[in-house]
Amino acid sequence: MVALTLVDGERADTVPVTDRGLLYGDGVFETLAYRQQQILQLTAHLQRLQVSCERLGIPIDRRDIERQIARLLSCLPSGADAPTEGVIKIIVTRGDGGRGYAPLASPDARCLIQFHPMPADYAGFSQRGISCMLCRHPVSANPALAGLKHLNRLDQVMASRELVAAQNGAGHDDAWLQEGLMFDVQGNLVEGTRSNVFAVISGQLCTPDLSEAGVSGIMRAALLDWFAGQGVTVIVRRIAGAELALASEIFICNSVMGIWPVNRVHDFSTETCLTLPDQALARRAQRGLLSD
Amino acid sequence: MVALTLVDGERADTVPVTDRGLLYGDGVFETLAYRQQQILQLTAHLQRLQVSCERLGIPIDRRDIERQIARLLSCLPSGADAPTEGVIKIIVTRGDGGRGYAPLASPDARCLIQFHPMPADYAGFSQRGISCMLCRHPVSANPALAGLKHLNRLDQVMASRELVAAQNGAGHDDAWLQEGLMFDVQGNLVEGTRSNVFAVISGQLCTPDLSEAGVSGIMRAALLDWFAGQGVTVIVRRIAGAELALASEIFICNSVMGIWPVNRVHDFSTETCLTLPDQALARRAQRGLLSD
Repeated sequence: MVALTLVDGERADTVPVTDRGLLYGDGVFETLAYRQQQILQLTAHLQRLQVSCERLGIPIDRRDIERQIARLLSCLPSGADAPTEGVIKIIVTRGDGGRGYAPLASPDARCLIQFHPMPADYAGFSQRGISCMLCRHPVSANPALAGLKHLNRLDQVMASRELVAAQNGAGHDDAWLQEGLMFDVQGNLVEGTRSNVFAVISGQLCTPDLSEAGVSGIMRAALLDWFAGQGVTVIVRRIAGAELALASEIFICNSVMGIWPVNRVHDFSTETCLTLPDQALARRAQRGLLSD
Repeated sequence: MVALTLVDGERADTVPVTDRGLLYGDGVFETLAYRQQQILQLTAHLQRLQVSCERLGIPIDRRDIERQIARLLSCLPSGADAPTEGVIKIIVTRGDGGRGYAPLASPDARCLIQFHPMPADYAGFSQRGISCMLCRHPVSANPALAGLKHLNRLDQVMASRELVAAQNGAGHDDAWLQEGLMFDVQGNLVEGTRSNVFAVISGQLCTPDLSEAGVSGIMRAALLDWFAGQGVTVIVRRIAGAELALASEIFICNSVMGIWPVNRVHDFSTETCLTLPDQALARRAQRGLLSD
């Protein structure tokens, strides 16, 4: 199953060179899991997409995007060839036009909807857990854009380059360095390159405050809700990088990976490795939140 | 003269939906002035492009880009229809491929070179000066990306939206609000939405330090060199927003506009307006640096 893309509802392989997503990263995106021929957390993703577009001033018609998603699914192979799982990516850009950075007063958004195969190894990482590294490239700070899953993702690209460079050592299993943890300029933990992070520090489950930087993930929100319903307190706060040394459990999450326990965190700058002894909350959330 | 684009040296109107410039803003760009059928400061722009690509790990062949620029010029109308001036934009993206944010180990960069008409009113603004406003949207801070003219430009788009929203008042001349000044989260002046800024504060010419945020412009560098050659000291330093009230002269610059004196700075949050009494250094630099 190769990637399939609809652009404004029609199969297409290209966008105009005038697209503001290309020119300025002027847009947002969502990445959704498709499992057992169902899109997971579709309503939450569409809700975040709408809120993000409102914050950027990009008008969208949510019903129209829902129709385009339905059309994408109708374009997938059917019968025995029908994919049972995959990744659906929705990209909304501010379309074309305007004068330089200044957009048109009434921009005509462009919507790309893509179907990608589910990475083959993701289920295994949920079971076995992964190892992480600390990335040096800091996350840009800006409260006016924090939380949004916008198209300005050079920070994540640069941190992922560190990850790729470090993965090339021999003699490791395939869970070796599956994620990099990212910090703000002050050294506070923000997120993974493509995930949100939870950590049990001094017996207290916590996750980084994202009011200055980072992407506020749908799976993170679902976990916060689910833990609250379970009577498990999660503190959303600034977490200094040095506090990770006190962690007994770390797990990461996003809509496609679900929840991955972290077995080890490598700090290549000091050549030290933190081993996490516990996975209890990650396993409980996998069973309770993701089992349906 | 409508916009003309070459993609990897061939006339094209589109890029693949897999382009990492579109997906992540994973690339850089340059904007060059074309006047009297000459590209201004070409060597400096190509040098910055190369340095920027090296910092992001995007391999480029500078000779190849020079050939593509020559080809763009050869595609322009000739004879009496030949444009005498315009704007040349070079965009380099990391091309396609990779897994999510993680790029290929040896990415195949994509180069777009565009010719746009010179905005008709730019010469007038150089002569008459402009008015500016203070933008609320802050510039993202990240020393690892500061200075680069990368494709993550949502901050400039958002600030330009403020500018467009404020421009719509009636009864103003066309120099009304031609630029917005941008500040970091701490309130320090960084840049204009599409320009660098110089200010004479308490008798001292200064320009913002860009080690934490902002684009390090080619014209800014040319001005720093030129003023040094003239024996005029320019202090590159952190400039608090409140210091602007002490300014006697402000001017902005970029490669296409050249140097524009600022007549007035509007602060719509306090409904105050700063009038700059002096334009001496801007005029001197226009005559000395730009007159050739």
